[in-house]
Amino acid sequence: MRVFTTPPVETVTFGAGASNAVLDRFRALGGTRALVVMSATLARSTVGEEVLATLGDAAAGVFTDTPAHVPREAVLDASRMAREYGADGVVSVGGGTSIDCAKGVAMCLSVDVTEPSHLDAFRTRRTPDGEVVSPTDIGRTVPHVSIPTTLSGAEHTDIVGITDTGTQVKHIYRFRALAPRAVILDPEIAAVTPPWLWAASGVRALDHAVESILATGSMPLVDALAAKAIRLLDENLTHSTANPEDLDARSACLQAAWLAIFGITNTGAGLSHAIGHQLATRFDMLHGVSSAIMLPEVMEFNAPATREQLSRVATAFGRTDDGPDSIAPELVRQFIAGLPVPNRISTAGGSRTPFREMACEIAGDISMAANPRPVTEDDIVTLLDAVW
Amino acid sequence: MRVFTTPPVETVTFGAGASNAVLDRFRALGGTRALVVMSATLARSTVGEEVLATLGDAAAGVFTDTPAHVPREAVLDASRMAREYGADGVVSVGGGTSIDCAKGVAMCLSVDVTEPSHLDAFRTRRTPDGEVVSPTDIGRTVPHVSIPTTLSGAEHTDIVGITDTGTQVKHIYRFRALAPRAVILDPEIAAVTPPWLWAASGVRALDHAVESILATGSMPLVDALAAKAIRLLDENLTHSTANPEDLDARSACLQAAWLAIFGITNTGAGLSHAIGHQLATRFDMLHGVSSAIMLPEVMEFNAPATREQLSRVATAFGRTDDGPDSIAPELVRQFIAGLPVPNRISTAGGSRTPFREMACEIAGDISMAANPRPVTEDDIVTLLDAVW
Repeated sequence: MRVFTTPPVETVTFGAGASNAVLDRFRALGGTRALVVMSATLARSTVGEEVLATLGDAAAGVFTDTPAHVPREAVLDASRMAREYGADGVVSVGGGTSIDCAKGVAMCLSVDVTEPSHLDAFRTRRTPDGEVVSPTDIGRTVPHVSIPTTLSGAEHTDIVGITDTGTQVKHIYRFRALAPRAVILDPEIAAVTPPWLWAASGVRALDHAVESILATGSMPLVDALAAKAIRLLDENLTHSTANPEDLDARSACLQAAWLAIFGITNTGAGLSHAIGHQLATRFDMLHGVSSAIMLPEVMEFNAPATREQLSRVATAFGRTDDGPDSIAPELVRQFIAGLPVPNRISTAGGSRTPFREMACEIAGDISMAANPRPVTEDDIVTLLDAVW
Repeated sequence: MRVFTTPPVETVTFGAGASNAVLDRFRALGGTRALVVMSATLARSTVGEEVLATLGDAAAGVFTDTPAHVPREAVLDASRMAREYGADGVVSVGGGTSIDCAKGVAMCLSVDVTEPSHLDAFRTRRTPDGEVVSPTDIGRTVPHVSIPTTLSGAEHTDIVGITDTGTQVKHIYRFRALAPRAVILDPEIAAVTPPWLWAASGVRALDHAVESILATGSMPLVDALAAKAIRLLDENLTHSTANPEDLDARSACLQAAWLAIFGITNTGAGLSHAIGHQLATRFDMLHGVSSAIMLPEVMEFNAPATREQLSRVATAFGRTDDGPDSIAPELVRQFIAGLPVPNRISTAGGSRTPFREMACEIAGDISMAANPRPVTEDDIVTLLDAVW
């Protein structure tokens, strides 16, 4: 017996010009005045101005001060701003940082969090026997419309990461109501994303898709979407990275990121994600960079347990040779090598010193549960050495 | 710019034994006492008894009197029973008739409909300029957990058809809140479905999948799921029809019906669905039978406008020959011919007399909007003659 949980995003509006619908979508959800969360760079750009112009009077204020990793204080500052300006909803424009901050604001407004420590009551914890629980339900949140500019897929999930600056630990919060209720995938908005970020986030989407096909909890619905995501990325990501003005290619990548995300909340991921969490935390790496480093290596490690699944990955890359499973990791490696993304720990700013310590953390990572092959800490150190 | 609307079903629990979760699912949605809607045949069967036993005291009562086409009076009778027994939710077990009746009960309980005529305020209408509108929103409904026994996909949609017995017209009601919030796909429950009904409803699922790939509004997410649905049906439906006790095959068919449904609420269908609505209404045919009759013929008719899409259908059937588009209609025809489902109007109880009159109705059918090739009334009569 298995359970598929439908992502709680109610509508995905996509295609060139989709962001023109932002006001309609916000109002359809019952919102009248939005706090807009976006980066300062984006707010100064033409596309940022256009989104604000479309919202018009419905833009109650613009919060542009979300640092990377979304510290609690930023979420509280943004929530205070929302209250002061009488906002009854949020609109996020940007990458995972802005989207996560906006999710946090929606939570704070809905459950009346006004101090950082109040958040503790809502974060997801592990019980002593390993079960993951979210202690207090938050009910419904205020409307959130999200317009992503990267391919990380944060806009499609009900998960948010917020950093406790006291302990420097990123906590996870997960409630269905944390998902943006409307997502807008507009290639014209995403055209301003720098090539290195676009490409890296696309590799992250590829990692979502590949690991959900290889995961122990794989299921036909997720497989079908992940395979299509791989196909769309293979056909469009490299070209779109070099040609941001090609709106069809950019739109296809945004759709790929959407299709790639269904596994994250349903099948689980695997070893590449587990290692990636540590690489990102220790070395301040983008998740997409950690995926570029680890995914091909992890696919080879898991190959003995995933022959059939690797065939599906190769087929998604358009290869129907005999023995397509054996070429799947190399297809992914070559695909990544053609993108402007570092794919070694040494070139991505990492260090070898903490590999053993990291291996211990990785072995206990939540993503390990879905990995199709047992992994020891020694295996992990070997893998890290291989991609140094 | 396009919009994808996520089906409002929150969870799909699938696999052998999934129905053991019915009480947990119902309670997780806040329900305490359910009116159970199922056919009298099912209520007397072992599986019906097992579902009731699992629900225990949470089964407030069992309504077994839903005639085909779901007359308003049956929905009102069931709603009255639910009120008398203090039910605060519904559980449906069965095919589209029981599921639609339960959706109707959820609506009546939520908006306090106590007379058949009250339903008029909620039905979907067409404005004079052709726009489809649902006049009054119904807000949230009581919890509905659905356990289907056929492959029609009714459990995954927010659409319900209820017949006005005064005018003999089936009205459509459509609100997000009408979708069952939890679906349970249990092959052990579906194993009791008679072969002819299982096979016919599987052809309906195939029609959903094929026409959503061919539809003018096709989109990658729906394409990916529809192609997987075709693959699962091709691999399992014939075998499962002959071997209901093979739970893996039956489970695969239930998943196929799920994956096939995403187009119905997002891309629209096409000419096979439009003709099918008339065949079902005029000749009291199962929708699956009308699909068995029309789908291959309609695919050939639409072929000049859908070469690329037909290739995808053929690929889903595992064919990668040169020119797979040209063989797609024949693949579907052969697949259907291997099932115990009538595939001519004459052998399915129809009559030729009203073909011209039907053509006029079909040309105005809501499904025509998504058909990829223009169709005249003469074309429709020619098609009907061809499958007589």
